[in-house]
Amino acid sequence: MKTIAPDSLSASAKLLIHCPDNKGIVATVSEFIYKNNGNITFLDQHVDLSRKIFFMRIEWELDQFIIPDDKIGEYFDTLIAKKFDMKWQLHFSHEVPRMALFVSKLPHCLYDILSRWKSNEIEVEIPLIISNHPDLEPVARQFGIDFHLFQINGQNKREQEQAQLQLLAQHKVEFIVLARYMQILSDEFVSQYENRIINIHHSFLPAFPGAKPYHSAFERGVKVIGATSHYVTADLDAGPIIAQDIIRVSHADSVEDLVRKGRDMEKVILSRSIWHHLQRQILVYENSTVVFA
Amino acid sequence: MKTIAPDSLSASAKLLIHCPDNKGIVATVSEFIYKNNGNITFLDQHVDLSRKIFFMRIEWELDQFIIPDDKIGEYFDTLIAKKFDMKWQLHFSHEVPRMALFVSKLPHCLYDILSRWKSNEIEVEIPLIISNHPDLEPVARQFGIDFHLFQINGQNKREQEQAQLQLLAQHKVEFIVLARYMQILSDEFVSQYENRIINIHHSFLPAFPGAKPYHSAFERGVKVIGATSHYVTADLDAGPIIAQDIIRVSHADSVEDLVRKGRDMEKVILSRSIWHHLQRQILVYENSTVVFA
Amino acid sequence: MKTIAPDSLSASAKLLIHCPDNKGIVATVSEFIYKNNGNITFLDQHVDLSRKIFFMRIEWELDQFIIPDDKIGEYFDTLIAKKFDMKWQLHFSHEVPRMALFVSKLPHCLYDILSRWKSNEIEVEIPLIISNHPDLEPVARQFGIDFHLFQINGQNKREQEQAQLQLLAQHKVEFIVLARYMQILSDEFVSQYENRIINIHHSFLPAFPGAKPYHSAFERGVKVIGATSHYVTADLDAGPIIAQDIIRVSHADSVEDLVRKGRDMEKVILSRSIWHHLQRQILVYENSTVVFA
Amino acid sequence: MKTIAPDSLSASAKLLIHCPDNKGIVATVSEFIYKNNGNITFLDQHVDLSRKIFFMRIEWELDQFIIPDDKIGEYFDTLIAKKFDMKWQLHFSHEVPRMALFVSKLPHCLYDILSRWKSNEIEVEIPLIISNHPDLEPVARQFGIDFHLFQINGQNKREQEQAQLQLLAQHKVEFIVLARYMQILSDEFVSQYENRIINIHHSFLPAFPGAKPYHSAFERGVKVIGATSHYVTADLDAGPIIAQDIIRVSHADSVEDLVRKGRDMEKVILSRSIWHHLQRQILVYENSTVVFA
Repeated sequence: MKTIAPDSLSASAKLLIHCPDNKGIVATVSEFIYKNNGNITFLDQHVDLSRKIFFMRIEWELDQFIIPDDKIGEYFDTLIAKKFDMKWQLHFSHEVPRMALFVSKLPHCLYDILSRWKSNEIEVEIPLIISNHPDLEPVARQFGIDFHLFQINGQNKREQEQAQLQLLAQHKVEFIVLARYMQILSDEFVSQYENRIINIHHSFLPAFPGAKPYHSAFERGVKVIGATSHYVTADLDAGPIIAQDIIRVSHADSVEDLVRKGRDMEKVILSRSIWHHLQRQILVYENSTVVFA
Repeated sequence: MKTIAPDSLSASAKLLIHCPDNKGIVATVSEFIYKNNGNITFLDQHVDLSRKIFFMRIEWELDQFIIPDDKIGEYFDTLIAKKFDMKWQLHFSHEVPRMALFVSKLPHCLYDILSRWKSNEIEVEIPLIISNHPDLEPVARQFGIDFHLFQINGQNKREQEQAQLQLLAQHKVEFIVLARYMQILSDEFVSQYENRIINIHHSFLPAFPGAKPYHSAFERGVKVIGATSHYVTADLDAGPIIAQDIIRVSHADSVEDLVRKGRDMEKVILSRSIWHHLQRQILVYENSTVVFA
Repeated sequence: MKTIAPDSLSASAKLLIHCPDNKGIVATVSEFIYKNNGNITFLDQHVDLSRKIFFMRIEWELDQFIIPDDKIGEYFDTLIAKKFDMKWQLHFSHEVPRMALFVSKLPHCLYDILSRWKSNEIEVEIPLIISNHPDLEPVARQFGIDFHLFQINGQNKREQEQAQLQLLAQHKVEFIVLARYMQILSDEFVSQYENRIINIHHSFLPAFPGAKPYHSAFERGVKVIGATSHYVTADLDAGPIIAQDIIRVSHADSVEDLVRKGRDMEKVILSRSIWHHLQRQILVYENSTVVFA
Repeated sequence: MKTIAPDSLSASAKLLIHCPDNKGIVATVSEFIYKNNGNITFLDQHVDLSRKIFFMRIEWELDQFIIPDDKIGEYFDTLIAKKFDMKWQLHFSHEVPRMALFVSKLPHCLYDILSRWKSNEIEVEIPLIISNHPDLEPVARQFGIDFHLFQINGQNKREQEQAQLQLLAQHKVEFIVLARYMQILSDEFVSQYENRIINIHHSFLPAFPGAKPYHSAFERGVKVIGATSHYVTADLDAGPIIAQDIIRVSHADSVEDLVRKGRDMEKVILSRSIWHHLQRQILVYENSTVVFA
């Protein structure tokens, strides 16, 4: 599932932690790294005082670290995590995650992601694009990525999702980006990729969930429109928010203007969220995110 | 109701119009002003193509205008408005409107408005402040404005509102600003000041209407919070939006931080809306505003 | 030079005017259109009171307009423009302008423009891409556009620019976009395309003109960085500004972070400026723009 | 110089550190607090990789901390700071700093600060207001604060500054806020309050330093204007930037509009900077700030 660059000299480890708040967590974790000869290059911690939960993201250089990469998780879990009742994830800078894109008919987010990928703005592998419409196949071809069409109707949805899941597993896909994919995923599908499906919704959630948010925004006469990226949960448009942005509009903007202006936000916000995800900067707790960026 | 500055040399008239869209409206209106020797200093028009409604705001200098001020409305109505089925308002730059402030316990919007008024940032008369709590009386006194306390409970609301309305009429109040007034006005009250009561709601409407929006925003884990000023209608927090603004927040912000950061937005947005109202830049149509600014 | 869509039913004309301010301009122009059976769909005017200059953009439907398209300019000039000493431009909605892109090594603006073009977000023809480096030829090929390499050194600059100008003339190029083109154009070149070369500068001008603005911004410890699009004049980075945008940064951002975050602004601002240019929404006067958007 | 609230139960200490980057700093400092029974409620650290400097802000609860408040600095210096060659500051949540305001003729920043102070938005003592013009004395009186007039001309500047410094010392003033004070302080004066004088400049520095920035912005035709708060250094408008904000403007805005719109930014940015300063969130290094907020 991972590509390891074997001779990477400035490799680093990224550890994401959350646990009940307690005295001594920072001291204990930073000492673990220090004593084992790791050089901390990034440390951010946050205490949610209302929920009494401690969050931390810590990154350190591995080149002189005395614990081998494949043992760090085990040692950390045994020596520290259990004591503080931590949930943790460990990632390495030399892993290149594998991402699948789901699209329908609108090309702007797809183009934006593929352009960044092709230009090495984001380091990720994109083994395939899945769509429920044939429209964007030429874009996939333009960037040399496999395009898989799964047309979905009332009858075949479950079956098609099973085929998609099989394909994703086969390609060792680690996370999914819905780049204006206009089809609701079943709970069963979502549960396979918990906190690993990123969606872009074209409104400032929780305002205007569901279909046609720009039309609703126009009807309501708002002076600002937004876009929201979030992890997908069973509850539509209600998952943990990763990023949001807005632009100002006026009475002079038609629905078509809102759609046009909104596209720029959508693609930038979605790509920024992919960046945070790839940097392992996002922790999900209950229905919120901590984004250490 | 108005204070007229008799010798004002650069006095101007402001005409706000809306009507079914049609050919020749701009030509007809601008010719009316031009032929009668008015110099147009501002003209903005907008056609809502989806509703086929024409909106216009036009401002012209009066010093050589051949129709006397007190006849302009009559002439315009007879010669032009009827022909195009126009709704119109006429205002003069030398009128100083009279505004009442309604407050409860939070001082930030009140201080902001009074500071601007005292510094002549806004040209308005403020004959009185009305409150349902005694807390802000010292602020009113600090700025030398009459403070009227109307404590409201389940029993006396109708009676208190009647007394308020009487007081407002007596002071020839033209419009009302709810500067974080934490009491819902009855439909009966609102109907007396249609499109003349400005409220500030401390969320990005339509997200988080009702009470405690910052708490709701925190719970939902949003990355942006907002404030919305609007004209008050019978339907709570659903009236025509005048202005909205937002600020970015993060996981590191507690509810108290949201409240603190939100205050700055609230006061600036509310004061900006008062400015637009005083400049006669706002047209209301159905449940939206056209703000010619 | 233009592609005319012959059966376009909702064709419209766009007239941009500026002249010394005077009474009766709006009335005269709007009457000209009205009397000849044009339906005005957009009118915006602006008076620069400090310079006493009148600006106007007016758009009307041509389908029942009694003056033929190819005579409108002549009639308008004879009947109206001369009287008011107007400078004017007339454009038609059914013309598709021809744009050349100049690039060097950075792909983000190029990808953004080509993606929008390919997705029909912008209606424009792109006959060629010119570059002083071979790096982006694959991107041009990916989108099927001719790529012309003009390597430039101290000796050959004049000669290469002459060859470029010839190529541009041959392809009937109407305007040029410098999509992070890292080569200064000579005054002679610029004078051939006055107010028709759009550049993106990666700072908030007039702060940090010249090379490496993100490095300078980092050194200065700014909390906000910007991007500026402008028409190119002989004076480097000092031409009329079309659009600017900013993003917030903090002490935690390295120069590399500024570069990365800046890219998103640059491409969005540049593409937005191309949009305004294509919509004929921009008037240049002295060293400023009026953008009727 | 400080007011100590003796029975404050949730008192906390705030420690700001910078030093050459090294392994083990976080571990050592957090262990110092943990071992002595302090509960860390806030920790943020930042490594400036280009300058190889480590910055940290750490806050912990004092109620069970075993080192007495008045010994913490000594112990920390002996046991830790010397080893890492640290520069450090220690502050306590129960100290209330003393701030002097310098003003001239414009009231908006002064009103904003005094309103927040009066409403307990900021916890600070304001023993006096100093001005070079009599205009704002009524505002000082309105809020019950001593107003000292020091009219300054070519001859008396040095003498007046000496008198001001004496007055500031007498009132034990810890830091100074220039709330649109239109008089340049001498290097001698500035050196007495290094990194303790906050100024608001009404432009987006480094664009438009010096006098009349809104006029310059108008002349340049910018599409965004800004405001910058910074610590005052001998080099005018070139000190370490604390905060910046911007608003969008258009061709339709006159210089007067820029001034009006700018005021809202100026006062909000200045007050936000005072907040950061009071929270002890700002570290100055070379000519930049690290703002842990």
